[in-house]
Amino acid sequence: MNEAGYLEELASKLFKIKKQIPLPMFKDKRVYVFAADHGVVQNGVSAYPKNVTYQMVLNYFKGGAGINVFARHMGLKFFVVDSGVDYDFEDNPSLIKMKVGYGTKDFSMGPAMTREEAITCIEYGMKVAKKAISQGADLLVIGDKGIGNTTTATAIFASFGFDVNKITDIGTPIPPSSVIKKRNIVKKALKINRPNPNDPIDVLSKVGGYCIGQMAGFILEAFKNKVPVVIDGFPTTAGFYLAYKINKKVLDYAFFGHLSKVKGHKVILDSLGVRPILDLDMRLGEGTGAALSVYLIEAAIKYFNFKNEKVRS
Amino acid sequence: MNEAGYLEELASKLFKIKKQIPLPMFKDKRVYVFAADHGVVQNGVSAYPKNVTYQMVLNYFKGGAGINVFARHMGLKFFVVDSGVDYDFEDNPSLIKMKVGYGTKDFSMGPAMTREEAITCIEYGMKVAKKAISQGADLLVIGDKGIGNTTTATAIFASFGFDVNKITDIGTPIPPSSVIKKRNIVKKALKINRPNPNDPIDVLSKVGGYCIGQMAGFILEAFKNKVPVVIDGFPTTAGFYLAYKINKKVLDYAFFGHLSKVKGHKVILDSLGVRPILDLDMRLGEGTGAALSVYLIEAAIKYFNFKNEKVRS
Repeated sequence: MNEAGYLEELASKLFKIKKQIPLPMFKDKRVYVFAADHGVVQNGVSAYPKNVTYQMVLNYFKGGAGINVFARHMGLKFFVVDSGVDYDFEDNPSLIKMKVGYGTKDFSMGPAMTREEAITCIEYGMKVAKKAISQGADLLVIGDKGIGNTTTATAIFASFGFDVNKITDIGTPIPPSSVIKKRNIVKKALKINRPNPNDPIDVLSKVGGYCIGQMAGFILEAFKNKVPVVIDGFPTTAGFYLAYKINKKVLDYAFFGHLSKVKGHKVILDSLGVRPILDLDMRLGEGTGAALSVYLIEAAIKYFNFKNEKVRS
Repeated sequence: MNEAGYLEELASKLFKIKKQIPLPMFKDKRVYVFAADHGVVQNGVSAYPKNVTYQMVLNYFKGGAGINVFARHMGLKFFVVDSGVDYDFEDNPSLIKMKVGYGTKDFSMGPAMTREEAITCIEYGMKVAKKAISQGADLLVIGDKGIGNTTTATAIFASFGFDVNKITDIGTPIPPSSVIKKRNIVKKALKINRPNPNDPIDVLSKVGGYCIGQMAGFILEAFKNKVPVVIDGFPTTAGFYLAYKINKKVLDYAFFGHLSKVKGHKVILDSLGVRPILDLDMRLGEGTGAALSVYLIEAAIKYFNFKNEKVRS
C-alpha cells in the first residue's frame, strides 16, 4: 500500500530522472522569475497599469515581494530575468538581462512579436537555464511577472484549442465586466492573428509574451540537462505548455507546484493529467506556489531514501 | 483580494490566538506521538498483530520511522508518549511514560476502560502538554500510534452520531472483507456499550483508547495555554473531537495538517467546517501529515508579517 501517497509518486518521478538510490538532495535550488510587459494591457485587461511591472522588478531587488519572502523561507536562490520589461534596469546581482524588446505589441491588433523575436525568446531562455545549470543549479523553480500575463497565457492556451470561456479568469482583481472584456480581447486576437496550433513558435509570436517564450526555452534546456523544473501558476504553465508542444518529454521533468486560484489552471493541468502538489487558493504569482512546494519534494526524497535504506538493511 | 489564499486564513487564525504584530515565529516546535494498544485488535480488524505497536515505538527510539524522517526535515523535536502500550519500555530520551494500562480491553465485549481510567487519560494528556509548554514548546503537533487505532477512532466518531458506514475504511492494508468486519465490530461495540454522546468521558471509557484520551487532554491543556496544535489524520482527529466535545473553543487553536486517505477523515473535517492544509493521499499516521504542514504555517506567518510591515512602512 502506498502509505505516503502522492509523496511516493513525486519520488518515483525524480527517480526516473536521476536513476540513483539514494536520490540526491538538492544542493542548489533556484527560482527564476521571468518579467516582461504585454502590449495587450492597453485594452484595460488588468487592474494595474503597465508600469507596475518594472516597479515590481525594482521591488524584487529590495527583497520586498512575496516571492522574496518564500524564497528565503525555502532556501532558494532568487533571480529575476528581464525578458522584456519596458524599462532599463541598472545592474543588480539578482538581475539577468535578456531583454528581447520593450514589451510585446498589442496582440489584439496584430502579432505580439516577430517570428525572429519568438525564436530569440526560446534561445535566451535556454541560455539562462544553461548558465544556471553550469553554475550547479539542480532544481529550477519558475515564476512569471508582468501586468497582462494571464491574458497572454489565456491567448496561448486558446490558440492550442482550449475553450476561452472555460479558462478566462481574473489574474489581478478586476471586475466581472473586465473578465468579459478580457475574453473578447483573446477571441479577437485569435481571429486577427490565426495562430497555427501545430507551430508553437507561431503561437508564441502571434499571441505570446517574451517572458512566456523564455520560460519555454528555459524548460527545454533544463530537460536536456535532466534538471527538474517546478512550474507555478497559470502564466508559467503557459510557458510549460509551449515547451511541451515542442517536446512532450518535458512533462517527465516538470513538477507542478500548486493549483492556482485562476480557474483556467485546473483545466490545463487536468488536460495534462498532472496533479499539483499544493492547493491553497493562491494567486500571488511570481513563483510563490511553486517555491512553497519544494519542501514537499524534498520530503518525498527523504522518505524515498529512508524506505530504500530500510529495504536494503 | 486574498492573493495568498489559504495562507492568509492560517495567519488570521494564528493572529486571533497570538494577537501580536508581527506574529512570532515558532521557537520550539514539537511532535508528540501517543502510543497505545487496543484490545479490539483481537478481532482481526488490522493487518498487523498487536505487538507491532511496541516494535514501532522501539523503532522511534532508533529514529527509524517515517515521522522521524519528517520531524528532522521540519525541525521538530520528537517525543513518543507511552499512553498504554502492552510492553514495558526502558528509559529513553524521547519517551514519556504515561501508561494508563497495558492496552484497552476489547470494546466489542464491554467497556474499553473504566471511567476512572478515562479521566486519568485526560489528566495525563494535560500533564504532557503542561510540561512541554513549561519547557518552551510553542507549536504542538500530535500523532497516534497503535495497531487498531482507526477502529477505535471509528467507534468514537460513531458514538457521537457519525454514520459508521460512511466513516469505516482501512487504516492498514486489510482486505474488503475485513472492512466489513471492522464496521460490524464497531456496530456491536455501540450496541453493547451504549456510549452516551452527551458525555465525552463515557464515550472515551466505553469505546476509546488510552492514546486518544491523552490526546484530548493534551489539546485541552494546549488551548488553556494558548498554544496552537496541529492535528494529523483520523485517530488524532478522534482525540481532537473528544476535546472539542468537552470544549468547543479548542477548534480556534487547532490546525488540521492534512487530509488523510482514510475516507472517514473528510467526513469529520467537513462536519467541523475545517480545511486541511495538505492533501497528499497519505495514510502513514504517526503525525507525518501534520508535521509536513508546519512549513506552510510558518510560510503563512512570514507572509503575514511581510504584508503588515509593508502596510506600516
